[in-house]
Amino acid sequence: MTQEQIRDLRAIVGEEDCFDDKAHLSAYCYDATRERKYPECVVFPHNEEEVSKIVKYCNDYKIPIVPRGAGSGFTGGALAVGGGVVLALEKHMNQILEIDMENMVARVQPGVVNMQLQKAVEAVGLFYPPDPASEHYSTLGGNVSENAGGMRAAKYGITKDFVMALRAVLPNGDIIRAGKKTIKDVAGYNIAGILIASEGTLGVITEITLKLLSKPKYSKSAMGVFPSIKSAMNAVYKTMASGVTPVAMEFLDNLTIKAVEEKFHKGLPKEAGAILITEVDANLEEEITRQITKIQEKFYENGANDFIIAKNEEESVKLWFARKNASPSISIYGSKKLNEDITVPRSKLPELLERIAEVSKKYNVLIPCFGHTGDGNVHTNVMVDGTKEEEVKRGYEAIEEIFKITIELGGTLSGEHGIGLSKAPFMKLAFTQEEMDLFRAIKKAFDPNNILNPGKMAL
Amino acid sequence: MTQEQIRDLRAIVGEEDCFDDKAHLSAYCYDATRERKYPECVVFPHNEEEVSKIVKYCNDYKIPIVPRGAGSGFTGGALAVGGGVVLALEKHMNQILEIDMENMVARVQPGVVNMQLQKAVEAVGLFYPPDPASEHYSTLGGNVSENAGGMRAAKYGITKDFVMALRAVLPNGDIIRAGKKTIKDVAGYNIAGILIASEGTLGVITEITLKLLSKPKYSKSAMGVFPSIKSAMNAVYKTMASGVTPVAMEFLDNLTIKAVEEKFHKGLPKEAGAILITEVDANLEEEITRQITKIQEKFYENGANDFIIAKNEEESVKLWFARKNASPSISIYGSKKLNEDITVPRSKLPELLERIAEVSKKYNVLIPCFGHTGDGNVHTNVMVDGTKEEEVKRGYEAIEEIFKITIELGGTLSGEHGIGLSKAPFMKLAFTQEEMDLFRAIKKAFDPNNILNPGKMAL
Ligand SMILES: Cc1cc2nc3c(=O)[nH]c(=O)nc-3n(C[C@H](O)[C@H](O)[C@H](O)COP(=O)(O)OP(=O)(O)OC[C@H]3O[C@@H](n4cnc5c(N)ncnc54)[C@H](O)[C@@H]3O)c2cc1C
Ligand SMILES: Cc1cc2nc3c(=O)[nH]c(=O)nc-3n(C[C@H](O)[C@H](O)[C@H](O)COP(=O)(O)OP(=O)(O)OC[C@H]3O[C@@H](n4cnc5c(N)ncnc54)[C@H](O)[C@@H]3O)c2cc1C
Repeated sequence: MTQEQIRDLRAIVGEEDCFDDKAHLSAYCYDATRERKYPECVVFPHNEEEVSKIVKYCNDYKIPIVPRGAGSGFTGGALAVGGGVVLALEKHMNQILEIDMENMVARVQPGVVNMQLQKAVEAVGLFYPPDPASEHYSTLGGNVSENAGGMRAAKYGITKDFVMALRAVLPNGDIIRAGKKTIKDVAGYNIAGILIASEGTLGVITEITLKLLSKPKYSKSAMGVFPSIKSAMNAVYKTMASGVTPVAMEFLDNLTIKAVEEKFHKGLPKEAGAILITEVDANLEEEITRQITKIQEKFYENGANDFIIAKNEEESVKLWFARKNASPSISIYGSKKLNEDITVPRSKLPELLERIAEVSKKYNVLIPCFGHTGDGNVHTNVMVDGTKEEEVKRGYEAIEEIFKITIELGGTLSGEHGIGLSKAPFMKLAFTQEEMDLFRAIKKAFDPNNILNPGKMAL
Repeated sequence: MTQEQIRDLRAIVGEEDCFDDKAHLSAYCYDATRERKYPECVVFPHNEEEVSKIVKYCNDYKIPIVPRGAGSGFTGGALAVGGGVVLALEKHMNQILEIDMENMVARVQPGVVNMQLQKAVEAVGLFYPPDPASEHYSTLGGNVSENAGGMRAAKYGITKDFVMALRAVLPNGDIIRAGKKTIKDVAGYNIAGILIASEGTLGVITEITLKLLSKPKYSKSAMGVFPSIKSAMNAVYKTMASGVTPVAMEFLDNLTIKAVEEKFHKGLPKEAGAILITEVDANLEEEITRQITKIQEKFYENGANDFIIAKNEEESVKLWFARKNASPSISIYGSKKLNEDITVPRSKLPELLERIAEVSKKYNVLIPCFGHTGDGNVHTNVMVDGTKEEEVKRGYEAIEEIFKITIELGGTLSGEHGIGLSKAPFMKLAFTQEEMDLFRAIKKAFDPNNILNPGKMAL
């Protein structure tokens, strides 16, 4: 970019909100992949109109532009691989615009942090279920762009199930609305549907209208202890098909249990093949009891050794501690973690995990697994010593094999983290040439000059 | 089309499944709009491969091709306005391919009738909620293409909330898969999302994977009688925001009540301003009681004169009779019915219906209203004497004004019936030039030769 171009952008947003100094470029060159790609300029727009002007300018001068929320993405979506502009939305465009209690709807700017919305709506008795583990910092714009999931997806679904309407700026600078503050709307193409999970490649989301629920009065957590992964995975899918829908049904394998225990000494069952941590909610205590009883029955039927019900909030927090600290704990197994979020139909979980164990042996790498098994989503973490080139290579080979197995079992490369840069090389495992052609045709329809977040999703 | 072209298509599907005789063309020239548009040829494919060949052929020769399910659409979607081929999917492609109880998923061909699936899954204790009033004949391919709603949308959502994956043939003949048999899948663009509600203009849907639920054990219906529409509409949105989610919350205005009563003499409250018929479901009787009690409380708080709870299945059927026979009954008010399915945010229902009453006066036409108020969807029926040109004209003017009011209140032209031909002239009321340009760019990306269902949706 030329100095003149940077001056032009500065004229749009003001002196204080457009930077090309080293400190700023460094602060906006990374995301949770820990890779670094330096933009040439970082811009902080104040409103949709400014976003439109900036994007139009970039389109006119063919400058790459990358929308960015909190930069917590796990696949490099917010990295400026082609240089150009990072459009950072979290600084100024972070207001909750409306909580409409009559229609149970919230309207927010894209930079609002997930938890900020959760808290605001819970304060008035409402409920926004999607709760990615990054809820304390990831933005709703990022959540929509990646179609983020969370612990509660087993019962409540994922971000897309809550998006009623969007406003967006297209790559040519046009401002569009998609969807309505109505439960139903079938007029015109479902533009909101395709913007969700488009990873910042089709438009910049400038406003989000989200469905809210009323918050159930009661909830209860429990943990099942299983002798083997297989018994736990059988319990997962058989429970989910038995007429109860737990809010969450999370899993930790033996390696993960041991890692958490080593780090935190919480008295977890270190010899267990796997544990399942689950939660139910309802508006009546009788319904809580019905669900917990049913889950207990199904867990024991499938070989559980133990079933521990949290008696109060404190015990519940204790049960969830293991799951919430799984990710940081497993670093004891290797300095570099190649973590994926493959997802299969629930009934394929037993086979998936069996085959991951074989991959672990074959490539001689440890692969602790945990995740959202209630919706078939497993976080597989291939742990390697980042300083050993050969080991890292073996790790990547293991990953590729795991992807192949996943696809073979009818699953997907990504349940929630998206494709971005990290998984782009594997798109060819999952999609045919015809399907990739269609993705490219859509990208071209929205963005003929390929200025919006170029180089992502193998487009 | 030339005779040679018809011979070529016949060679693909066989002698018995390609016709250009008058009888066949007549049988496939209409839909529920009662308009007639004659195709030049009707083809009944046996499988996806044949669909691909036919579509590719039509693309090569630039012949318009119109996918068709049961032809029950209310907006002319299945009418062959540009001649060409009607691709009728209900004859051979009507098999339920799989009911996967372990993952709670069904896989069907597009010609499967909605009720056929509902019955098949209920026989094994599962539940497919979307229940358009046309459930006994409309096809799932049609339901997906229009994103059909139904009575249960208030609690369970609409067709799109159940579509996990699709297979489709693109206008160039390419066969693609979109989505997976997994709760989550964020790899690649959300193609299923944009095919839903695309009214047969982007691709021919050849296979549908649908999410199933477990069927709640108990349900109960009740009716609230209100002195005025306004009190009923207040009750609707205040109930929906009170911590209960009824399966259905349906409404009939005074004109509709009178019409049903005149025709069927069921002892309905003819003097009521409006009635609301509602249903709740749950797995525990206590939860049924909780919900019904809450609804009763909210109805009385908002001015209900009476609240009648069905004591058994028979009484429940009786309560629902009025709603199910609303549509045919109102024909007493005019030989021609201009019926729309506008939808507004629920809190705007009182104002919407007040303003429809004003439109009725202004244009001197009767407008009986009923519908799915639980999701803000109102069927507004402008009744005119079809033989009186001037009256019909007034009717259309009234419709246009109702659309304008709907948009002003943040609503949509169509909650479930789509745009097709009938509402195409009104698209400009709802969408900006930029938004229409985007629709056209998407259409072009999928269908550069404009062969698939051309002339629809004002594209
Ligand atoms: C510890 C940790 C735990 C996590 N747990 C989960 C989890 O449980 N579930 C889950 O799904 N994810 C999880 N993630 C991944 C990540 O938090 C999510 O993908 C999140 O949605 C990203 O939001 P963000 O604001 O950080 O977006 P960013 O990382 O800034 O951007 C992500 C992508 O969205 C695009 N984007 C951002 N804002 C906009 C906008 N307004 N318009 C258009 N495009 C935009 C970017 O261009 C980029 O492609 C986790 C990450 C971490 C670090
Ligand atoms: C009495 C009555 C009551 C109704 N009640 C409701 C209701 O409660 N809720 C509601 O939403 N609708 C309702 N409808 C409208 C209609 O039934 C729905 O729109 C239904 O989904 C249409 O299905 P169909 O199989 O008849 O489709 P068709 O009318 O044959 O086609 C509808 C559209 O879908 C396209 N299409 C059909 N199959 C495919 C395919 N496989 N691939 C691609 N495109 C395809 C067609 O090209 C056309 O544009 C009602 C209609 C009637 C007559």
